[in-house]
Amino acid sequence: MEAGAELRYTHRMKTIELMLRSHPHADTQRSSDYAEALKALATCAEMCTACADACLAEPEHLEHLRRCITTDLDCADVCHTTARLLIRFTDTPHELVHAQLHACILACQICADECERHADHHDHCRINAESCRYCQERCNFLLGEISSSVTAETSSPEESPTMSP
Amino acid sequence: MEAGAELRYTHRMKTIELMLRSHPHADTQRSSDYAEALKALATCAEMCTACADACLAEPEHLEHLRRCITTDLDCADVCHTTARLLIRFTDTPHELVHAQLHACILACQICADECERHADHHDHCRINAESCRYCQERCNFLLGEISSSVTAETSSPEESPTMSP
Amino acid sequence: MEAGAELRYTHRMKTIELMLRSHPHADTQRSSDYAEALKALATCAEMCTACADACLAEPEHLEHLRRCITTDLDCADVCHTTARLLIRFTDTPHELVHAQLHACILACQICADECERHADHHDHCRINAESCRYCQERCNFLLGEISSSVTAETSSPEESPTMSP
Amino acid sequence: MEAGAELRYTHRMKTIELMLRSHPHADTQRSSDYAEALKALATCAEMCTACADACLAEPEHLEHLRRCITTDLDCADVCHTTARLLIRFTDTPHELVHAQLHACILACQICADECERHADHHDHCRINAESCRYCQERCNFLLGEISSSVTAETSSPEESPTMSP
Repeated sequence: MEAGAELRYTHRMKTIELMLRSHPHADTQRSSDYAEALKALATCAEMCTACADACLAEPEHLEHLRRCITTDLDCADVCHTTARLLIRFTDTPHELVHAQLHACILACQICADECERHADHHDHCRINAESCRYCQERCNFLLGEISSSVTAETSSPEESPTMSP
Repeated sequence: MEAGAELRYTHRMKTIELMLRSHPHADTQRSSDYAEALKALATCAEMCTACADACLAEPEHLEHLRRCITTDLDCADVCHTTARLLIRFTDTPHELVHAQLHACILACQICADECERHADHHDHCRINAESCRYCQERCNFLLGEISSSVTAETSSPEESPTMSP
Repeated sequence: MEAGAELRYTHRMKTIELMLRSHPHADTQRSSDYAEALKALATCAEMCTACADACLAEPEHLEHLRRCITTDLDCADVCHTTARLLIRFTDTPHELVHAQLHACILACQICADECERHADHHDHCRINAESCRYCQERCNFLLGEISSSVTAETSSPEESPTMSP
Repeated sequence: MEAGAELRYTHRMKTIELMLRSHPHADTQRSSDYAEALKALATCAEMCTACADACLAEPEHLEHLRRCITTDLDCADVCHTTARLLIRFTDTPHELVHAQLHACILACQICADECERHADHHDHCRINAESCRYCQERCNFLLGEISSSVTAETSSPEESPTMSP
C-alpha cells in the first residue's frame, strides 16, 4: 500500500459523518447517531456476506451451516436497504424508517443467534455474531432516538413528557 | 427481436412459479401466492427506479418532484430486499418475513400516495402509482396467508392436527 | 387470488415498456429493446436467488452445489445492478453501460455453464440455466444495439446520415 | 453514545480484515488488499447515496445537479455489487471479478469527475469526489494485484515475467 493511504483512509472513515453534516437539512446531533448506525450497517452487511461465503467453503461442516448461510444472506440484504433508507432522511417518513429499522433489528438478532451457535468452531461465525450484535444495538439506539424526537416534535405542551415512550 | 423470442419469454415469465415448485421443500399452494408477490415486487422495484429517473429528467417540474424521487428510491430498495427474503423461504423465520413485508407494504403505500399526486401531469407517476398499489395488495395478501398458516401450525392441542396444512 | 387480478397482472407486465415510453427523453425503438432486457434481468436475478436457496436445501448434494450457489449469488447481484443502470439511461454514460453489460453477460454465462452441469439432477438448476442463457442473449443483443447507435451518432460526415437509426 | 462503544467500533472497523482471514481459503497477503478495497467500496456506496440525497435537498441548484444525482445513484449500485463479488472470492472466476472491477473503476471516475464540477459550491460533492477517487484508486490497485497473481499462477517457467501485462 502506498505511503499515506492508510492515514488518509482512517481520516476518510469519519467522512460519513462529515457528509451527513454537509446535507442542506443536517441536524448535527442526529448526524452523529446516524453516522454510527450507518457504519455499523455497512460493516454488518459486508461481514454477513463474507461469513456466508466462508461457511460455503468449510470442507466438512456444510450441512450444519445451511441455516447460518441463509440468515447471513438475509441480514446482509436487510442491513443494506436499511442503510439506504437512513441515508435518505430528507423525505423518508418516520413510520417507514421505524418499520425498516424494526425488521433490521430482527434480522441482526436472528443472525447473531445463529452465528453464536457455531462461534466455538468457526472464527467467521464468532466475528460475525459480534458484528450483528453491534449493529442490532446501534439500530435499537437510533430507533429510540427517532421515536423520542418524533414524540417531542408532535407533543402538545399539555402532554407530560414523562409519559413519552 | 428474433423469431420465437417473444413467445419464449412469455413462457419464461411463468418460470418463477416453476422455479419455486422445484425447491426441495416446495409447497404447491404457497408457491402460487409467492410467485405472484415476487413478480409484483420485481416489477415495482424496476418501475420505481424508472419513475425516479423520469422525474429527474422532467424539464420544468423538478422542484415539485423531489419527494417523489425519494419515495421511489426507498420503495425500489425495500421491494428488492423483500423479494430476496421471500425467495429464501427455506430458513427465513416467519417473524422476519412479517416485519419486512410490513415495511414493504408501507413503502408501497407511501410511494403510491405520492405518485398519485402527480398522476394527472406525469404518465410515469400514474403508471408507477398503479404498480405500487398492486404490489402493496399482493404483499398484504401474502402477509395474511403466512399469518394464518403460522396460526394453524402453532394451534392449540384442541384443534385437530389432521387439519393442519 | 381475487377475480381479475391475474388478468390485471398480465397487463401490468407490459407496463415496464409503457413506463420507459413515458420518460421525457424516451426513444420508442430503444424502449422495446430495453424493456426486454429489463424483464430478463429482473427474472434472472430472482431465479438465481431462488436457485441458490433451493441448492442449499438439497439434502444430499450440498457438496456438489457449492460453486453453483456462489455463481447464483454473483449473477443475482450483477443482474440487479445492471438493470438499475439500464433503467437510468438519462445520464448514464454509454461506456459505463457497456462495461456493466459486459460484466453481466459474463456473470450469466458462468452461471448458466455451472447450472447446466447439474441440470439432469436438479430442476431448479435446469430452469435457472435457461433463464441465465436468455438474459445473456438479451444483454448481448442490447450491447450490440447500443454500440451501433453510438457508432451512428459519432460517425464521420462521409457516412450517409440517412443510414442512421 | 454509551461509554466504550466508540472504542469498540474503531476496533471493529478492522474486523473486515479479520473476517477475510478467517475464511477457510484465506490468503493473508491478499486479505489486506481486499479489506482496503472493501472498506473503500462500502464507504463510497454510502457516500454516493448520501450525496444524491443532499443534492435533491439543495434549495436552488437542483437543475444543475441532475446529472450528479444520476452518477451518484449508478456509482452506489456498482460499488455495492462489486464489493459483494470481491467478498465471495471462493469461487468467483477471475474474469468476472476483472470485468466488474473495470465497470466499478469507470463508475467511480465518472462520479468523481461530475462531483468535482460542483465541489466549490457544495461540500457534499467535494467530499464525495474524494471518496470516489479513493475507491477508484483502491479498485485499480486490486485489479493490478489480481492480474499479476493470475499471470504468476498460469505462466509457465519458460515465459519471461517481464513480458507479463
